[in-house]
Amino acid sequence: MPADHSALSLAQALICCPSVTPEDRGALDVVAQALSGAGFSVERPVFSEPGYPDTPNLYARIGDRGPCLVFAGHTDVVPEGDGAWRYGPFDATVADGLLYGRGAADMKGGVACMLAATLAFIARRGGTFPGSIAFLITGDEEGPAVNGTVKLLDWARARGERFDHCLLGEPTNPGRLGEMIKIGRRGSLTGKLTVLGRQGHVAYPHKAENPIPGLLRLASALVAEPLDGGTAHFDASNLEFTTIDVGNPATNVIPATARATFNVRFNDDWTAASLGAELRRRLEQAAGNAVRFTLDLQPSNAPAFLTQPDAFVDLVSRAIQAETGLTPTLSTTGGTSDARFIKDACPVIEFGLVGETMHQIDECVAVADIERLTAIYERVLEAYFPTKR
Amino acid sequence: MPADHSALSLAQALICCPSVTPEDRGALDVVAQALSGAGFSVERPVFSEPGYPDTPNLYARIGDRGPCLVFAGHTDVVPEGDGAWRYGPFDATVADGLLYGRGAADMKGGVACMLAATLAFIARRGGTFPGSIAFLITGDEEGPAVNGTVKLLDWARARGERFDHCLLGEPTNPGRLGEMIKIGRRGSLTGKLTVLGRQGHVAYPHKAENPIPGLLRLASALVAEPLDGGTAHFDASNLEFTTIDVGNPATNVIPATARATFNVRFNDDWTAASLGAELRRRLEQAAGNAVRFTLDLQPSNAPAFLTQPDAFVDLVSRAIQAETGLTPTLSTTGGTSDARFIKDACPVIEFGLVGETMHQIDECVAVADIERLTAIYERVLEAYFPTKR
Repeated sequence: MPADHSALSLAQALICCPSVTPEDRGALDVVAQALSGAGFSVERPVFSEPGYPDTPNLYARIGDRGPCLVFAGHTDVVPEGDGAWRYGPFDATVADGLLYGRGAADMKGGVACMLAATLAFIARRGGTFPGSIAFLITGDEEGPAVNGTVKLLDWARARGERFDHCLLGEPTNPGRLGEMIKIGRRGSLTGKLTVLGRQGHVAYPHKAENPIPGLLRLASALVAEPLDGGTAHFDASNLEFTTIDVGNPATNVIPATARATFNVRFNDDWTAASLGAELRRRLEQAAGNAVRFTLDLQPSNAPAFLTQPDAFVDLVSRAIQAETGLTPTLSTTGGTSDARFIKDACPVIEFGLVGETMHQIDECVAVADIERLTAIYERVLEAYFPTKR
Repeated sequence: MPADHSALSLAQALICCPSVTPEDRGALDVVAQALSGAGFSVERPVFSEPGYPDTPNLYARIGDRGPCLVFAGHTDVVPEGDGAWRYGPFDATVADGLLYGRGAADMKGGVACMLAATLAFIARRGGTFPGSIAFLITGDEEGPAVNGTVKLLDWARARGERFDHCLLGEPTNPGRLGEMIKIGRRGSLTGKLTVLGRQGHVAYPHKAENPIPGLLRLASALVAEPLDGGTAHFDASNLEFTTIDVGNPATNVIPATARATFNVRFNDDWTAASLGAELRRRLEQAAGNAVRFTLDLQPSNAPAFLTQPDAFVDLVSRAIQAETGLTPTLSTTGGTSDARFIKDACPVIEFGLVGETMHQIDECVAVADIERLTAIYERVLEAYFPTKR
């Protein structure tokens, strides 16, 4: 348990729990204890799904009227990885003004700042403010994300919980605190392309049908033209081949099939369905009658989404500006996050620490950034729940 | 041991020995016994090489003056394969005019015909003819071919043996006995192409360097233009990609490297060296400064070679024509064979049974073809060693 309720102490207490997905190791206890001490009602639902490990989650709320501002985040972390850490990944060492540890940036640091800011805000207001504050914290964000935020939102909806705005504390800043708010995320679609041929001996190619030239042609056709030129708030959609595998060890044998996998990060020009149709059109055009192929599009649970810049985005931007002097970019870059699920419940934006070292050896954040992010979250709370003048 | 020295009996005796490379199981005993009975001196050298199984070979010769005609072949066979045979693969069953068994076509049938023809010829001449006959028979043709013909030739050369012409009994006829003599073989060159990139997350492609588009570009460049248009006796050279392997299971990760393997069957326009240089030129042109790659060319032990059509080819063609009524095509198609080694010792051509079922389940040859091939080999011997008029 933390020495006090400062953001740094909370972050250290969280990092000291080796909560590599799906393990919790006491991480949610730290959150629960901090919030229940401040008057929150705390629920700890565990979700199950055949084939996946059970995962713990936390829902907490204080207040029973609107508006309701939600802080969202996760306490699970990716494994420590292969390689020597300067300081133990679960030791939460502070050295030279930096807090080291797995999850320092992604995103135990952010969770600690939310907690510390909320506790300070509630204490300052004597427990009274015009609205509600909720926390949606999951232990399954870095893993399959099946027993995490998506089910926690269903669970909350079934209880009749309603949210007005959500601030997700992912490490959104590439290099400097205050640089970047994420107001949306690109969607993700994965496809598996198989080109069918006929096996044979390399010395008798006319008796075989090599699928590899067909695969080269089809794969080239998928990336020949850009998918789009980007939209008002999004970069251009991008397709990356992640693997090609034939697995034929014999250098004198023409293989029977060739397989490739690609992933598209797409913007709000597309839905998964319209994008799939365009990819299929490109493949069919390139294949003509010459190449036999199948395209297997994985179901996408990551659509592109955008939270239109509005008063809430302005409120958060002003809080950032006041503490850092920077005007944050409103960005939609990067990978997916749990915001893709939250966006169906209420407008959601993301702002947290600096993500430069996330998922790496020697993950760390500046202690000064932890303090400033806490101050930013406090400013958000103050502005979101104004005192009557 | 065979019931008699007919080609069919010899073929059956050979097939009954399950001599899957590197096993012999008595196959060379059948050959040795037949030849020593006819007055041949027979040697049975076994060759060794670290990392390869020891393999038995047979060298036999009758006569000590030129010209020396060599019959060459192998008694090892490929495995029986997965699948049910109509008749046991090592039972040598005759049914409906067909001899079934592993090696019936490739090439125990051919070896049996050489033996039967030679024994008949020697008997007919009362052991006297103007020249020598030799047999080069190996047990390592279908395997690594390291302890087989290549070493047997070195061994014979070291003993001072000199050969004038060689007839290799591989199954050269695609569908009908008499269709095709092989007077050369294309060379074989295998290359491994590796494109180097930098691993990263698919959502941040600008921080990574996907090697797959580079591989698509380089691979496409290798096959974009034909290598040549064929030569007087050879088809066009042909490049086939045999595999592409990236082996990246994560659909959200851009891989670090992509590998492809290709094999070229090349004609007498090229040496392995000149072909390798051309392939490298194409790759470098396509890569420019944009793609980092390595090309690893495997040492080729299969150069393209041609036995120029001459009097010996005519002699064999006339023998074939007399027995089958067909004028054989002089071909250089198909895979490699031990002729690629023999060509350095003397002019070599290949003619044997019908290869349609070779390496397959239910490998078989027509008994009538065995008898006709024996008659053809006898005519070759009669014409090669004419009686004085």
